[in-house]
Amino acid sequence: MIDIKLPDGAVKKFDAGTTPFDVAKSISEGLARNIISAKFNDTIIEIYTPLETNGNLTLYTWEQPEGKKAFWHSSSHVMAQALEELYSDIKLTIGPAIDNGFYYDVDLEGDVISEKDFPKIEAKMLDIAREKHDFKMRSVSKAEALHYYKEQGNDYKVELIDNLEDGTITFCDHSTFTDLCRGGHIPNTGIIKAVKIMSVAGAYWRGDEKNKQLTRVYGISFPKQKDLTTYLELLEEAKKRDHRKLGKELELFTFSKKVGQGLPLWLPKGAALRERLENFLKAAQKKAGYEMVVTPHIGQKELYVTSGHYAKYGEDSFQPIHTPAEGEEFLLKPMNCPHHCEIYNSKPFSYKDLPKRYAEFGTVYRYEQSGELHGLTRVRGFTQDDAHIFCTPDQLDEEFKNVIDLVLYVFGSLGFEDFTAQVSLRDPEKPEKYIGSTENWEKAENAILKAAKDKNLNYVIETGEAAFYGPKLDFMVKDVLGRSWQLGTIQVDYNLPERFDLTYKGSDNETHRPVMIHRAPFGSMERFIAILLEHTGGNFPLWLMPEQALIIPVSEKFEKYAKKVLNLMENDEIRALLDNRNETVGKKIREAEMNKIPYIIIVGENEEVEEKISVRKHGGEDLGMVTTKWFSELVSEEIGKSLKTFK
Amino acid sequence: MIDIKLPDGAVKKFDAGTTPFDVAKSISEGLARNIISAKFNDTIIEIYTPLETNGNLTLYTWEQPEGKKAFWHSSSHVMAQALEELYSDIKLTIGPAIDNGFYYDVDLEGDVISEKDFPKIEAKMLDIAREKHDFKMRSVSKAEALHYYKEQGNDYKVELIDNLEDGTITFCDHSTFTDLCRGGHIPNTGIIKAVKIMSVAGAYWRGDEKNKQLTRVYGISFPKQKDLTTYLELLEEAKKRDHRKLGKELELFTFSKKVGQGLPLWLPKGAALRERLENFLKAAQKKAGYEMVVTPHIGQKELYVTSGHYAKYGEDSFQPIHTPAEGEEFLLKPMNCPHHCEIYNSKPFSYKDLPKRYAEFGTVYRYEQSGELHGLTRVRGFTQDDAHIFCTPDQLDEEFKNVIDLVLYVFGSLGFEDFTAQVSLRDPEKPEKYIGSTENWEKAENAILKAAKDKNLNYVIETGEAAFYGPKLDFMVKDVLGRSWQLGTIQVDYNLPERFDLTYKGSDNETHRPVMIHRAPFGSMERFIAILLEHTGGNFPLWLMPEQALIIPVSEKFEKYAKKVLNLMENDEIRALLDNRNETVGKKIREAEMNKIPYIIIVGENEEVEEKISVRKHGGEDLGMVTTKWFSELVSEEIGKSLKTFK
Repeated sequence: MIDIKLPDGAVKKFDAGTTPFDVAKSISEGLARNIISAKFNDTIIEIYTPLETNGNLTLYTWEQPEGKKAFWHSSSHVMAQALEELYSDIKLTIGPAIDNGFYYDVDLEGDVISEKDFPKIEAKMLDIAREKHDFKMRSVSKAEALHYYKEQGNDYKVELIDNLEDGTITFCDHSTFTDLCRGGHIPNTGIIKAVKIMSVAGAYWRGDEKNKQLTRVYGISFPKQKDLTTYLELLEEAKKRDHRKLGKELELFTFSKKVGQGLPLWLPKGAALRERLENFLKAAQKKAGYEMVVTPHIGQKELYVTSGHYAKYGEDSFQPIHTPAEGEEFLLKPMNCPHHCEIYNSKPFSYKDLPKRYAEFGTVYRYEQSGELHGLTRVRGFTQDDAHIFCTPDQLDEEFKNVIDLVLYVFGSLGFEDFTAQVSLRDPEKPEKYIGSTENWEKAENAILKAAKDKNLNYVIETGEAAFYGPKLDFMVKDVLGRSWQLGTIQVDYNLPERFDLTYKGSDNETHRPVMIHRAPFGSMERFIAILLEHTGGNFPLWLMPEQALIIPVSEKFEKYAKKVLNLMENDEIRALLDNRNETVGKKIREAEMNKIPYIIIVGENEEVEEKISVRKHGGEDLGMVTTKWFSELVSEEIGKSLKTFK
Repeated sequence: MIDIKLPDGAVKKFDAGTTPFDVAKSISEGLARNIISAKFNDTIIEIYTPLETNGNLTLYTWEQPEGKKAFWHSSSHVMAQALEELYSDIKLTIGPAIDNGFYYDVDLEGDVISEKDFPKIEAKMLDIAREKHDFKMRSVSKAEALHYYKEQGNDYKVELIDNLEDGTITFCDHSTFTDLCRGGHIPNTGIIKAVKIMSVAGAYWRGDEKNKQLTRVYGISFPKQKDLTTYLELLEEAKKRDHRKLGKELELFTFSKKVGQGLPLWLPKGAALRERLENFLKAAQKKAGYEMVVTPHIGQKELYVTSGHYAKYGEDSFQPIHTPAEGEEFLLKPMNCPHHCEIYNSKPFSYKDLPKRYAEFGTVYRYEQSGELHGLTRVRGFTQDDAHIFCTPDQLDEEFKNVIDLVLYVFGSLGFEDFTAQVSLRDPEKPEKYIGSTENWEKAENAILKAAKDKNLNYVIETGEAAFYGPKLDFMVKDVLGRSWQLGTIQVDYNLPERFDLTYKGSDNETHRPVMIHRAPFGSMERFIAILLEHTGGNFPLWLMPEQALIIPVSEKFEKYAKKVLNLMENDEIRALLDNRNETVGKKIREAEMNKIPYIIIVGENEEVEEKISVRKHGGEDLGMVTTKWFSELVSEEIGKSLKTFK
């Protein structure tokens, strides 16, 4: 008998040779039906692998990332088999699972795969899948493995095997196909119900451009046809919602080759959107007791030597700015914290003055290689909605909770309902990695954990993931396409107060070190707006929309009345525009739809006579002829639903 | 007979040998009494210098800068005489008039002048003045001049004379004193009624630190004792109002050695003040059809090569920022215009879309030598309230007028009532100095002149002072101490549209170049706030004050009522603070006075019972016990007086 410990801590006894499938079955029939992979101690295994010793067992279905990985890893074997059958001279190299699907790098020896070949690869894969071949692992000796691939003339696999140790090498067989493989498969090909070849690309063997260029074939597979359909729809939707595309269409931002890559220029509508977001946060921050400060975008090198940023990032950053005389050296600021520490240091504080909460929409500059740049999500200059709280250790608890409240308020007002939190703690086994006393670390970690619990956050704990200067809490939000984005961060810092020699006079009349909290609910304005664009597809919450309503007179004759309506809207603080261009009403409506304007207001004879307006929602819904008062109330109500007042 | 032309264009006939004094007398007895200097053609002369030829004559009294210059130049002769009488080994070098008074650099051969010596110098000067010695010019030969100073052993004057041409050398005598002098004196020492030695400092002969260090004695003099008193009071007041001192006291901004000199850090109260000023301008700009944009603080070197700034300023600026890879070069932006040109260029425009008015509170960085830095008036990083208008040549006229309206609105709302404008035009004799067609220049100059006239500006025209890229209009404001500051500027630009190849499609369907207007009513936020601080002594217009009212409960017992009052104030959007510290009411009032808080509200037994507040104005005026409603109305009214709505 062996002891099998399950993730919930329960320990069950089984006969030696029991498989994960058996264990699943002992729990429930439903689990047994869905289990596709397992982990025994630290090793991913197949569900029919016999368990011979005591150990920890985790069972995975398609719903877990580990289940998907096994599914896609197995699918890459199936694709490899299909490719071998279709391309006789093919040599396989490596074929891993990735975040969304899998790929295989193959040497086609002159053959070419193009998009028109995808259907036949998919058909062949589905044929293999339908045949329900079991995946079977077997150990082979190094000599045997080398012999197998040398016979095929596959130098790639030979090279891979050369680097492996004899006794650790395994092959996986299914159907007539064999591959060098470490394991981690689903039970058989039959549960692969839907496949799609996504693309082909060139890739160098081992990523080295001095080597031969191989063909990388990307694919994805699913246990249900419906899942594939949904995935492809999401992909299509993601393409439509690409913030770079929407940003251009909605005239929010642009880039200029002359100004430089990764340096966005905010066009009027985008700048107004940013300002509204900033004002929204400013109002909440004011209520929460923050004070705005303004600091320069450069600082002397010495400032970053003091903060430690120079030693850590100096060589990989934008290089120092020299002065024409006096030999000074400045750096573009990569962070606002050193500047805020200097503000704290400009005046002595007593414990009665704390906490001090300095906030700044601070634009920082960080060098990224041009290949890494991507729209607004990866840039070289961005504005953080930054703040630093300087408090006593006793205040940390409450301050941390207040910050969580603020972050939740921000997410709520912007329609991000689905988010998780990650609490990163220190590794208690490696105290040498961290700065600050054990007592303070414990205080801080407990403060974060308690806050996360009290605030009912859905959170995971990652031990050993804390920064060297303190523990932290990160928020991950899910967008409507199900993609996760890291947004707001809250970090506790014992390091900078030390390095900048920050102090306050305690109630004991002694000098103490304050604790520092770094926090940014949006993270960066640029990245946040990009995510918000993709999340909403440009249909921002009404309070954020660049234009809330467009007024279209049906002819020149009603322009005067349209202007009167515009005035009424402006009085009610509705952002409305009048479209009095010499174009057809149809064209104006089409353009307004493209520009995602939430409400289109049409005025003509009837409307003027009755002193009303005809309202049409973005997307086409007709709200009929209504009074401007009714419309204003509708707008207020809609705004009120998403935009609550803080506290 | 000779023809004398006066500044008003009148030509009068006089006998040859007539003096400026005679001419003044022929105009009015009053003028004759007050005239102290004159200019004949291009030469400054004494008022008793006989006029022998036809020519242009200008007469100066103390009121004109030229009159003051003659007065102070003459006073420096008097001071030199006094010094010679007091310090026997003295050697005189040079002693010019300056903006406020005069100085003389003297070699004391080991003697020392310190502050305690000032009264005796002043007394000696007044003795000489009272003796009413005439200033008399005479020509001397070079040999004679050299002989005179060689005999005295004064190598400095010998060196000066060595560099002069024989036949051009003149001496000036008064009393027993003689000096090498080009002329330009008041008639006699008797009109000097008040003198003050201001300070002594070290100065190298000819400004070269390899030469001997001399003693520079600074003095000032006036035609009336009262003028001196007023001047000294203003000086004292200016010291009190020094924005560096007030900025520290009111906790508006600070500097940090680590961040770097000339890089202000805005503290919470200062940042809030800045933001209020920005919001004020933003609201007006929005009404005037401006659109805000946001651009990065760096740009590729190429951007400034295109704009021409690199060729002009590159070597004297902050040096380029290199990247760790890819060999890119960026510059801190010294101006926002190139970025705004790139925004204009991001989209094609037709004449129907113009004017486009892009505004940005853009922070720019310009290198200044550390010796040149001064508080907020001379910094290395500052935020311009910048905007660029891109319009058709036909729109220039109206756009320019609209900008003047905006500038006048800004000045009016901030209490700058006394200002003049300077129109800088091209030198029509030197067309090669300017870019753009003569036709466009004429259009632009006429537009500016017409606008200045139509808007009833008090302006002067400076021919030849235009920038090479276009004519401009600068505003000079006078502060309460009578000092002039250059503030807002409006410039027309034909150059950047050319360099950035900016275009629009005209009604003729052809491609045209837009004209660009650069404008900044404040100029820079930093400099403007400095000037405003010195102008108001920290007593900003009420709408701008960091705190408008401080609420002081007479004891802890009335804290609850005080909080209620605070809430009422907040509801009425009055920025009030509650001072519930454990200090005496007296101390709290003294501190509130020091912090220039406009209204102090005191609440105690009577106030609570009657639901009223006792109000005391900054400076001490008691407004008695009033309702909060009355007080709110008072505040609204006071704000309404200075802060009008734009248009």
